[in-house]
Order: sequence, then structure tokens, then C-alpha cells
Amino acid sequence: SSLHPAEAQPRRRAPAVAAVLPAGGSGERMGVPTPKQFCPILERPLISYTLQALERVCWIKDIVVAVTGENMKAMKCIIQKYQHQRISLVEAGVTRHRSIFNGLKALAEDQPDSKLSKPEVVIIHDAVRPFVEEDVLLKVVTAAKEHGAAGAIRPLVSTVISPSADGCLDHSLERARHRASEMPQAFLFDVIYEAYQQCSDYDLEFGTECLQLALKYGHINAKLVEGSPDLWKVTYKRDLYAAESIIKERISQHICIVMDTKEDENHVGHHLEEILKNELNHVKVTSGALCPTSRDLEQIILEQCYNYVCVNVMSSDFEETRKLLNMLEESNLSILYPIVVISVYFLDYKSVPFDEKMESLIQIREYAKEVKKRNILLSGLLIYFPQDEQKLQASLRQGVTIIATLIKERNSGLVGQLLVA
Amino acid sequence: SSLHPAEAQPRRRAPAVAAVLPAGGSGERMGVPTPKQFCPILERPLISYTLQALERVCWIKDIVVAVTGENMKAMKCIIQKYQHQRISLVEAGVTRHRSIFNGLKALAEDQPDSKLSKPEVVIIHDAVRPFVEEDVLLKVVTAAKEHGAAGAIRPLVSTVISPSADGCLDHSLERARHRASEMPQAFLFDVIYEAYQQCSDYDLEFGTECLQLALKYGHINAKLVEGSPDLWKVTYKRDLYAAESIIKERISQHICIVMDTKEDENHVGHHLEEILKNELNHVKVTSGALCPTSRDLEQIILEQCYNYVCVNVMSSDFEETRKLLNMLEESNLSILYPIVVISVYFLDYKSVPFDEKMESLIQIREYAKEVKKRNILLSGLLIYFPQDEQKLQASLRQGVTIIATLIKERNSGLVGQLLVA
Ligand SMILES: [Mg+2]
Ligand SMILES: [Mg+2]
Repeated sequence: SSLHPAEAQPRRRAPAVAAVLPAGGSGERMGVPTPKQFCPILERPLISYTLQALERVCWIKDIVVAVTGENMKAMKCIIQKYQHQRISLVEAGVTRHRSIFNGLKALAEDQPDSKLSKPEVVIIHDAVRPFVEEDVLLKVVTAAKEHGAAGAIRPLVSTVISPSADGCLDHSLERARHRASEMPQAFLFDVIYEAYQQCSDYDLEFGTECLQLALKYGHINAKLVEGSPDLWKVTYKRDLYAAESIIKERISQHICIVMDTKEDENHVGHHLEEILKNELNHVKVTSGALCPTSRDLEQIILEQCYNYVCVNVMSSDFEETRKLLNMLEESNLSILYPIVVISVYFLDYKSVPFDEKMESLIQIREYAKEVKKRNILLSGLLIYFPQDEQKLQASLRQGVTIIATLIKERNSGLVGQLLVA
Repeated sequence: SSLHPAEAQPRRRAPAVAAVLPAGGSGERMGVPTPKQFCPILERPLISYTLQALERVCWIKDIVVAVTGENMKAMKCIIQKYQHQRISLVEAGVTRHRSIFNGLKALAEDQPDSKLSKPEVVIIHDAVRPFVEEDVLLKVVTAAKEHGAAGAIRPLVSTVISPSADGCLDHSLERARHRASEMPQAFLFDVIYEAYQQCSDYDLEFGTECLQLALKYGHINAKLVEGSPDLWKVTYKRDLYAAESIIKERISQHICIVMDTKEDENHVGHHLEEILKNELNHVKVTSGALCPTSRDLEQIILEQCYNYVCVNVMSSDFEETRKLLNMLEESNLSILYPIVVISVYFLDYKSVPFDEKMESLIQIREYAKEVKKRNILLSGLLIYFPQDEQKLQASLRQGVTIIATLIKERNSGLVGQLLVA
């Protein structure tokens, strides 16, 4: 990606951009002891998702995160564990404004051994808004370059009222004439840094709005940019639930069917593929094989697919699944999200006896325990394979329901189970 | 429950209270075709949860719901299917204010064959705020009786700003001096009904705030009452996710262990009970038996427990589970929420051979299919029972992890499965 996509004016110079992320909050509103930016979603702290959203935008050169002294060590672990790039840490202040000011100071100072240099434009974002997209970042940066300051806004969900001193309604504000100020915001660095330098202690203690500082001290009326609903701030426990569901949904949008042979056009994996496509309308379903000449699977892994259905017809052992697991382990894909792998077998009462097949499949529990350590959630699925075509369809549909459930829930409590369709 | 609990002043007369619920919205903000009040959560429409919250407050005599003509039939089905009480339906208007006005008219008119009579106080609530509690309803009703009008408020999550005509910041509002106006609200019936009668068409088309009408036309400054975060309005798709997680969490707070004998103090069910209590800190775990002399279980069902772990040691058949399922079916408990039932068996390699046990347990799939129609989610759990005490503990803990997962996810996609710990 580039700061100037095709539709933007090509002549403008790309400004140097950095981001400051205040992450010193204590999260008392959540009703939980952990500050909300460190609350886990699929076992990974919320702030790591926000860092991921910023660092995948290649024109953001530096990301400065302000954390309290007591969380500094935990933050360093997060950066290392999830391999975050271009992050610098500074000490948070006691208020949000003081934390942002500390972040700006770190970017302003030209210290000999600092990798940081002063950007032309600085983005200010929240650690607890993980779903920020490149387009809105680009919009606020472009607008900040032109106007000096810019911020994302959203329509108000509730009417805003002003109470009187005795706790009664004084007046209500016209909803259509007001907006909620959200993040990200962006500023010409000099504008916001000078504003912070002029701030009173009262501003730094009780203020919450950077756009207001640019207005008060820089006389700049920030450009307002419509943001998407996804920009909302994770504030309450319910917001963590919502964020988890959104993340689970996002990583469930692509399922790869891995077949143990590429040649057979009547491979039952193709039937499964068809039914998956029909039942899960909005999901991309692709297929590949593990044969050495095929590059399909490597490509799919590169595309960051987090869901694999390994369909075995040629044998009832785990060789194919094991190959797939090895490839996934080597790719490091599961660092950021748990990968679901479902190893599918077929039960034809006519050929292999039920008990014998079961015995051999019981091994799946050991494999599952092993790969769970690498954030891969492995289950087995045994699909009854009757001769009757209609019964087979019913049986495959039941299998697809189980596959969809395992992918949707992505719960590690059921790894190693052998489910039966 | 009563309108005047111990802590309130006992001398006041309890006012006649009704509620009006505008439910005519089209839900365009959700990005889904179904209006949000009809979106399913655990397969039940959101509005049914809100009706349930209001009808369990016994001092609310009538609940008037305004729905559009095209949703009238669906609404009648919802009332019948979930056995809602004290509900009257009126036709919604094209705006929220017009729908509320229609609801008020139905309460004002003394028609000969109408069951409705004019209340002293009317509550106005939203169909998309399902978590309203009796305490906040009591507070707004009491305050409305004293002040003429009252409404729930919440602190602002974002700063509110006022844009200029060119899309730039004009000014930002001081967050501490403003509040978000939420629901429920309550009014002396005559105050709000007269206000609506005086409303201009402009008010009815573009207004959103009932408190503002009471101020403008009744010169009443509504009393503002602090509400809980749970009062928030389900607006976006993420709010549906959040609501589903909250509901799932609420019905997972009580697990009942059903043992197939009451006498045995060393019953392995007691071990399981201990581990469940340790692992699930905030969950109430109780136990009971199915013997005919015991009233435990009937009491637990009456307490609306939605999670049952049926522990079988005396036999490996389904007799005990079947008795439990019969009791649950007779109780009608599953009309409102899916009930999770886990039938637990123990696998002692020394006594019954694995395959033989498996064969007999395969029947669970047929039972599960049957009771799923009644909103009961049945799974089987086979726990390995080694002689070694430490290994047994590990095995039971593994069983508890599976039990916790099944209860948390409450997903019908895995019913009838036999899981192994
Ligand atoms: Mg976004
Ligand atoms: Mg509440």
C-alpha cells in the first residue's frame, strides 16, 4: 500500500507519518481488574490487534505507545511474542493528554541514538480501537496535511442532554447538529506539539479532546471525516464480547479443503466443498492438494487462511494431516490467530469395521495436544458414507454443520475430539 | 416484586403503570435486512427478551407494542410462541414519535371491549434494550410521579462536537457537563399525552426525545436517573454479538449435577462437582438426584437452571438421562432459552470393554435429535476413569473443560456428539 493510491493527486509529496497510541488507561469502566487494552481476545491482548492494524499500513514509519511503568514489561513481551514492528515505548502520564504529550516529545527530540525522527504528520489513535482501516487513516492524514488537523466522527446513537445542577433536564441537543468525536485523528506535528506545549495544567488534567487543543492553541478548525461503525472504542465488557465475535467472524471467511489426491474429480472432498459453499454463503471456499508438485496450499497459507478441512479418502491414517500441520507450523501463521484444522474421514460400514477405524483415529488426541501448543486447534470428523446418494448428501450436510460450528466457535476446549456425522 | 420495596417510603400509593414500546424501526443501521428488534439471539427474536424483562415486573399492568402492519403477524407469533403476557399491539407510525403517540392513544381511549385503561404513569422503553432491570424501572416511575417526567442517562463515551457547515470542527462540548439520554423513561400519563397532542408535525417527523416534548409542551424538567451500562441500545451488528454473549453468560451461571444415586458420598459426581466449583469461580454449582423421594431437582428447575450434568455410575444406559429430559420437557423451561444437558459416563478399561460401551452410547444421537426439537441440547461425555488418583483428577479436569465449553458455546451444531475426556 502507498499513501497515494491511484485516485489521489499524484503530485503531492508523501508526508512522513508517525502514530502515537496512549495506552495508560486503567479500565475501571470494564468492571474487571485488567486494563481493557490488555484484555485477551482469543488469548491475545486487545492492544496487539490495534498494533497489527497500524503496522500493516506501511507508510506509518513509527508507532509510539505510551504505557505505565507497571505495564512496561508486559508490553515488551507482547511486542516480542506477536512480532510487532516499528514500535517505540514511552512512559504514560497520569492522564490521557499527558500520555499523548510524552509520545509527541519522543518524536520531537532528536536524540543521537534514537531511531525516531520528527514526522510531518502524526496520527493519534486509541489502543482500544482495534478495527481501524487504512482508508480512514489515509483520509485523516491527507486532511491534516491540508487543514492542520483532522478527526474521525460518527453520528450520535443517543440524544445528548445537558443536566441542571439539581439533576434535572436543562435542555437537549439537536441530534442532527452534533457528532461523536472518535479516533483516529491526525495533525501536522508542529501544530499539535506546540498546542501541547502551551497547554495549561487544567487542560492536561481534565481535557479529553486533541481537536479542541488544536482549536484553542493553534486556531485550527479540524477537518471532520466520517468513520465506519467499526471505529468504536472498546469500553465495557460487552465491547470485548463484540470485538471477539467480530474477530472470529473475520478469520472464518476463508476455508481451505485439502484433499489427499489431486487427480480424482469424484473425490468426496469436492462434494463437501460444494455443500460448504452452499451453506456458508459469504465464505470463500477453496481447495488444494498436498502433492509435492502443487503450490496451491503454500499460496493459500500466504493468503492467511485460518481454516483447513483435510479430507482423507485414500487412507485412514494421519499422514496427510501431519504434512498439513507441518506446513502450518513452518508458516508461523498461528502466531496471531488460532488455526482450525479438521481432519475428515469416511466411515463405510462395508469395508473397514467401525471399531477398527475408531481405534486408529483415537490417536488424534495426541496430535491435537501437541499442536495446541502452537495455537492450532485440531479435531477429527468421521462422516458416515452410505451407498445411497440421498443419505450421503444428508450425512455430508451434517458434517458441514459440525465443520461450521468448530470454525465459528474456535474454542480450544474441544480439540482432539472425534466428532461423528 | 412490588412497586414499593422495603427501602421506599411505605405510605405512597402505588400508581397504575403501563409501558409503551415503539418497535416500528427498520434497522437500516445494522447492515442486515431484518429489523434489529426481530434479529434472533439463540434463535429467539431480540424483542422477546425485552418483553420478558418488562413482563416479569408484576406492577407493569399493560405493555403496548407498536409494530408496522407488515410485522404484525410475526409479532403475534412471537407473543404466542414465547407465551408473553399483558401485551397489546398497535400499528406503528412512520416515525418513532408517531409510534409512541399511537401507543399512548390506545391507553387513553376507554373503548368498551378494550382491556386497557388509562394508567397514572407510563413507561416508554425501546424494543432493542433487552437488559432493563426492575430497579431502574422503579426509579424512573417513582421520579415521574414526583416530577412529571424522568429518564435514564449515561455518561458520554465520546466527546460530542458541533461541526460547521463546511465539515470542520466548530466547537466541542464539555464532556462532564453532558450526558447521553437513554431509556427507560417514565411520565405522568396526562403530561406526555397532552404534549403529544400539542406536537407539531415537525416534532413528530424529526424529533427523537420524549423528555424534550415534556419540556417544550409541559414545561417539565424531567428528573434524570443514572442507568447501568446494560441499558445500551442494540444498534449495530456488534451489539447483537454483545447481547448474545451477555445472554449466554447469564444463563450459564448455574449448573446442576444430577447423580444417579443420592446415598453414595463417594459418588464420582461429587468429585466433578468440586472441580467445577474450583474451575468456574462465579458459577453456582448444585447437585441433586432423581430418586422419587427427592424434591431437589424440581426445585432447581423452578429456579430456572439451564445447565444439567447427568452423572451415571450405576449403569451405562440412558434411563437416568431420559428421566431428567422428561422432567425438563414437562417444565417448559426451554421455551425461553436452550437447555444444555450433558450425560456423563465413565470408562473403566478394567470392567466394560471400550467398544461395547461405545456401541451402547451411540444411541445418544437419536435422543439428541429428538430433544433438540424442544430446545434441549444433549451431548454425551465419556470420562476415562483410571485407578491412579492423580490421573483420575486430570481426567476429571479435562471433563470439566469440555462441560464448560459446551455450556459456554450452547451451539446446537454439536448435539448428539459423544465427547471423550
Ligand atoms: Mg474500520
Ligand atoms: Mg440493566
